[in-house]
Amino acid sequence: MLKAAVIGASGYTGAELLRILWGHPHMDVCVATAGQYAGVPIGELYPSLALHYPGKFEEYDRGVLDGCDLAFSGLPHGESMKVVADAVSAGVKVVDLSADFRLPAAEYEEWYGTAPPAPELLEEAAYGLTELCREPVSKARIVANPGCYPTATLLGLAPLAKAGFLEGTVIVDAKSGISGAGRKLTLATHFPQAADSISPYAVDGHRHLPEIWGRLEDMADEKLNVVFTPHLVPMNRGILSTMYVDLSGRDSLSNIRTLYDEAYGDEPFVCMLSPGSYPQTKAVQGSNNCQIAIDAARGGRTLVVTSVIDNLVKGASGQAVQNANIMCGLDEAAGLAGPALFP
Amino acid sequence: MLKAAVIGASGYTGAELLRILWGHPHMDVCVATAGQYAGVPIGELYPSLALHYPGKFEEYDRGVLDGCDLAFSGLPHGESMKVVADAVSAGVKVVDLSADFRLPAAEYEEWYGTAPPAPELLEEAAYGLTELCREPVSKARIVANPGCYPTATLLGLAPLAKAGFLEGTVIVDAKSGISGAGRKLTLATHFPQAADSISPYAVDGHRHLPEIWGRLEDMADEKLNVVFTPHLVPMNRGILSTMYVDLSGRDSLSNIRTLYDEAYGDEPFVCMLSPGSYPQTKAVQGSNNCQIAIDAARGGRTLVVTSVIDNLVKGASGQAVQNANIMCGLDEAAGLAGPALFP
Amino acid sequence: MLKAAVIGASGYTGAELLRILWGHPHMDVCVATAGQYAGVPIGELYPSLALHYPGKFEEYDRGVLDGCDLAFSGLPHGESMKVVADAVSAGVKVVDLSADFRLPAAEYEEWYGTAPPAPELLEEAAYGLTELCREPVSKARIVANPGCYPTATLLGLAPLAKAGFLEGTVIVDAKSGISGAGRKLTLATHFPQAADSISPYAVDGHRHLPEIWGRLEDMADEKLNVVFTPHLVPMNRGILSTMYVDLSGRDSLSNIRTLYDEAYGDEPFVCMLSPGSYPQTKAVQGSNNCQIAIDAARGGRTLVVTSVIDNLVKGASGQAVQNANIMCGLDEAAGLAGPALFP
Amino acid sequence: MLKAAVIGASGYTGAELLRILWGHPHMDVCVATAGQYAGVPIGELYPSLALHYPGKFEEYDRGVLDGCDLAFSGLPHGESMKVVADAVSAGVKVVDLSADFRLPAAEYEEWYGTAPPAPELLEEAAYGLTELCREPVSKARIVANPGCYPTATLLGLAPLAKAGFLEGTVIVDAKSGISGAGRKLTLATHFPQAADSISPYAVDGHRHLPEIWGRLEDMADEKLNVVFTPHLVPMNRGILSTMYVDLSGRDSLSNIRTLYDEAYGDEPFVCMLSPGSYPQTKAVQGSNNCQIAIDAARGGRTLVVTSVIDNLVKGASGQAVQNANIMCGLDEAAGLAGPALFP
Repeated sequence: MLKAAVIGASGYTGAELLRILWGHPHMDVCVATAGQYAGVPIGELYPSLALHYPGKFEEYDRGVLDGCDLAFSGLPHGESMKVVADAVSAGVKVVDLSADFRLPAAEYEEWYGTAPPAPELLEEAAYGLTELCREPVSKARIVANPGCYPTATLLGLAPLAKAGFLEGTVIVDAKSGISGAGRKLTLATHFPQAADSISPYAVDGHRHLPEIWGRLEDMADEKLNVVFTPHLVPMNRGILSTMYVDLSGRDSLSNIRTLYDEAYGDEPFVCMLSPGSYPQTKAVQGSNNCQIAIDAARGGRTLVVTSVIDNLVKGASGQAVQNANIMCGLDEAAGLAGPALFP
Repeated sequence: MLKAAVIGASGYTGAELLRILWGHPHMDVCVATAGQYAGVPIGELYPSLALHYPGKFEEYDRGVLDGCDLAFSGLPHGESMKVVADAVSAGVKVVDLSADFRLPAAEYEEWYGTAPPAPELLEEAAYGLTELCREPVSKARIVANPGCYPTATLLGLAPLAKAGFLEGTVIVDAKSGISGAGRKLTLATHFPQAADSISPYAVDGHRHLPEIWGRLEDMADEKLNVVFTPHLVPMNRGILSTMYVDLSGRDSLSNIRTLYDEAYGDEPFVCMLSPGSYPQTKAVQGSNNCQIAIDAARGGRTLVVTSVIDNLVKGASGQAVQNANIMCGLDEAAGLAGPALFP
Repeated sequence: MLKAAVIGASGYTGAELLRILWGHPHMDVCVATAGQYAGVPIGELYPSLALHYPGKFEEYDRGVLDGCDLAFSGLPHGESMKVVADAVSAGVKVVDLSADFRLPAAEYEEWYGTAPPAPELLEEAAYGLTELCREPVSKARIVANPGCYPTATLLGLAPLAKAGFLEGTVIVDAKSGISGAGRKLTLATHFPQAADSISPYAVDGHRHLPEIWGRLEDMADEKLNVVFTPHLVPMNRGILSTMYVDLSGRDSLSNIRTLYDEAYGDEPFVCMLSPGSYPQTKAVQGSNNCQIAIDAARGGRTLVVTSVIDNLVKGASGQAVQNANIMCGLDEAAGLAGPALFP
Repeated sequence: MLKAAVIGASGYTGAELLRILWGHPHMDVCVATAGQYAGVPIGELYPSLALHYPGKFEEYDRGVLDGCDLAFSGLPHGESMKVVADAVSAGVKVVDLSADFRLPAAEYEEWYGTAPPAPELLEEAAYGLTELCREPVSKARIVANPGCYPTATLLGLAPLAKAGFLEGTVIVDAKSGISGAGRKLTLATHFPQAADSISPYAVDGHRHLPEIWGRLEDMADEKLNVVFTPHLVPMNRGILSTMYVDLSGRDSLSNIRTLYDEAYGDEPFVCMLSPGSYPQTKAVQGSNNCQIAIDAARGGRTLVVTSVIDNLVKGASGQAVQNANIMCGLDEAAGLAGPALFP
């Protein structure tokens, strides 16, 4: 069994790592750290884990990485980069779930307001949208795990981007369950404010926008205008990304279906829905799966791609384990292959 | 007090009419009919109305319209047109909440698969998106009450359309609470299927599309490509319409704000949100209000308009009463002015 | 129009007072104060009120009471008693929605850990469970508005208590929507923790227990063992109280129904459901109504009483207005008579 | 690998069996039958299973049992007994998730209105509340899997019953997520009726009452008065049972804790919460776990036991697999040991 450290384990993505790794056939969690909750029994914060993790959250110290085979960092951006540096210097492979290694230096500074990590670490970090980046991930010491919105969106648009079918404006209207906002208390995520209601937010620019925009332009090898509007939906988990692409006769719907089938036919976690079916977030709840549908809007000029993931699994901790599996030479699906919880 | 008949009162829009009219200072419900539930106490089907309507649903017969000042029809499309014809021949003004008088004949047949109502009735019916149609509504014997999605969307886009700022493709990504699907049992609206999940539907063409598309082209006096994707959101009430318009430098955001302020500054039911605020459906729950925000997406080429209503009030029964008030020469806001229920 | 001050208007009960009073035919809100939010536009905190209250929350100062006919205090316990004292000395009638005047001095200190208000004020305050206390409320300068759980529970049990049918143990298993916990952020009311889940809390003693226990013993004129277990339910509003009373052949179910019908037959806000029907919280959402059902459990020895209210209306702000109406000699139902919002 | 047949696989408990068995290390699903959906791809009805079960639901015929090692029946009561008879005659062990073998003949007829199955089959069926019945289950050809409410309730009360601490009246106030009502469409489970609302039902007698009552009396070896009130809670999964037992000084709370710790200390799926903690349904979502808390109500005369399970797992399909594991001589926890999905 490989030994995995979960650094920053008290947030939702950290707890989800503990949940997933518990069932992993080749990895064991050797330490789970938490800042404010160091010394607190894991089962006190997460009664769902009480039977499985009888121990306590520990305090982080670079020494906890000694003897580990790999580390996951679930720390917030800004804090995470230090742990990543520790891991690299300790010779421990690391998957970073924060935003610290996802963006080029200039963009990081623009969107996060602080200097990015040491340039050489940033340079060597592999972006970990697994289906699109297996080769660099397999060789990386550092993997920057993608954001939840970018995961759903880029998986939905990659076949089009690579085929040269994206140009001009791409509209991404995304909807997220409220766990995506994390465990931190805010008025917007207070039950009486959020329940039974939907609202957009960050319309003028969300931090996941540059990640989506940049990766799309890279794949399309073209300048684009990417519009991204996130919404908060009264549900626990799940992201639905609804994407609008101008196709103006560039190709037939059935040819585009073929494009997607070829791209994802052999993927263990991506499922193309048959014509006339549309995805729902609950169908991937608790799983590492992504379900995608494509259809033409009435009139035929606009292609509508819809894509769902569980934001905490394929959008965070599940994909992190998927990347770790590849980094460690394991079966990519190890510990991740189970069905979603429905209903 | 004017006497109002509510025909088709057992569905959600019918019950909402009963709720609203109970508090109306100048209208009384003189009869409430229901097909399958004729003879059933109103309070048995809707315990929320038990103290206010101690009587029973009655069977419809054209005689029930005798002595009424006006009628509301909450019947399904196809059935409603007969009641409208009865009302006209009985000299009773009528607001039709179905789709029977919303579309030109050819489009009606295309989307509903049956012949539209008698051409002369269709011709004289006024479309009742109140804020945009006061003049024709004030003179009409028949008002076609708009669909819920069109109401949220057209209020959101009207100032742009009239200013000539719409051209090319207009994307409408709309989200609805589940009461919008009505009281009829379906798998998609069964709690365990719908709760804690979001999904798109009718991506290739929803029946509200031609209503949106046609009215927008009329206002814009231009051919458009309107894309409309509805989604089912796990909440009871509310519609959020997120709309994307290519502005490519056509005007500044602040000028566009002025456009909206001028259009809606005096409206009793439309509220423009201040810059940086975005609407949430719960803020209009149970009210006849519409809240609208406009913002530019990062990059500045795309305008994002977001608009919320309560689908059963401004999107159906509230707007029907608003239209009836105008048809009867009453204060337009009579019975409708109260605040939303929050949280 | 009478002039009403709403002190502590930024919490949920305060905002609900603003909502209700807006539609009151004989009262106007002349000032709405808030501590931390003084100076903030009301519509910014509550967009649902933006069109109705264009002003700002003001800072509290005893001078704001000058010229008022009555005051409502939505402040937390401990803070509220000072405002009540100010009101009394200014000659302004006051309804206190906090716990400060609900309990005898000794019990207040036991459950709230601080000294109760000035004994003479406490003594003169009338307990305001309206249906049971009209006489004292009509003469009072201070009304202690009941807690939400006690309102649902005492209305459910009063006819039995007065008839001498309560003895021994009375079990109260109560369920509340999450707005009952207020606007303050806590982990238990964070959406991802609370949604799609139910849990009990304060099993060993909730602050509403002495209020229920004391009033029941007063009515029954008997020592009782009252057990009260509150639960947090994933919904916005509503309380359901399920009550278990040992009847051991003390009387027939139909005689007990008669007892309830006599008690509540003329009440404007209490509705007895017919045999075989059970209440649901949504049927009273947004209304001042209470719906009650009684039934015998299989075996016939235990009576099960179920009672629902909207915690923010009949359980707080609605009942406060009902009491204020009586204190001011108005129609008790003024501003409160409308139906619930369903669905 | 053992071969398992899932008969009646299209309902929620059937689909949950498919989900659980997919991850079982020693069992494979060899056939999944469904009446109305025979011939339909499994992934069409349950997109969550599309990647895992590429086949179709088959039509039931006793021949499908040939070559199977065991069968699960997820059919409704009345239909299930025929499949159980087929299984027995084919020499296939069977776990029946319906009510057909849970009750003595006379009670079955009283509550289900039809004759019970062949007396000799009924006699040999073992009741499968696993923690309490391992011995008979291990020897049985037929296991009657308990109802969801009885599972949560009996696990909560068993230690008291066996210690002779139950007498007189036992109150069970139970709350269930809506998946407990199954996949069949009803008005009560239509989203707009059920969401954001709680209600009791079947107060005068639910079909799970005789199962609870009988087993409790058996364990307590005493006549009891068991009162059981189920409630519908707006959540997908989960049962919370809140139980009230009169202890009148029979023993101290800490001794009772010891009783529970002894009863459940070695159980893999039952977790006693520490004093002051209370269970929430979400903490067991998707898992086979049961979490129990005990506390004394203020006054000390009444013990309050709270117990949570996932109704579809420990309350149905998970416990069915747990029983099947024992019947087949496997590790009881095989395929069931994973943590819950939280949040």
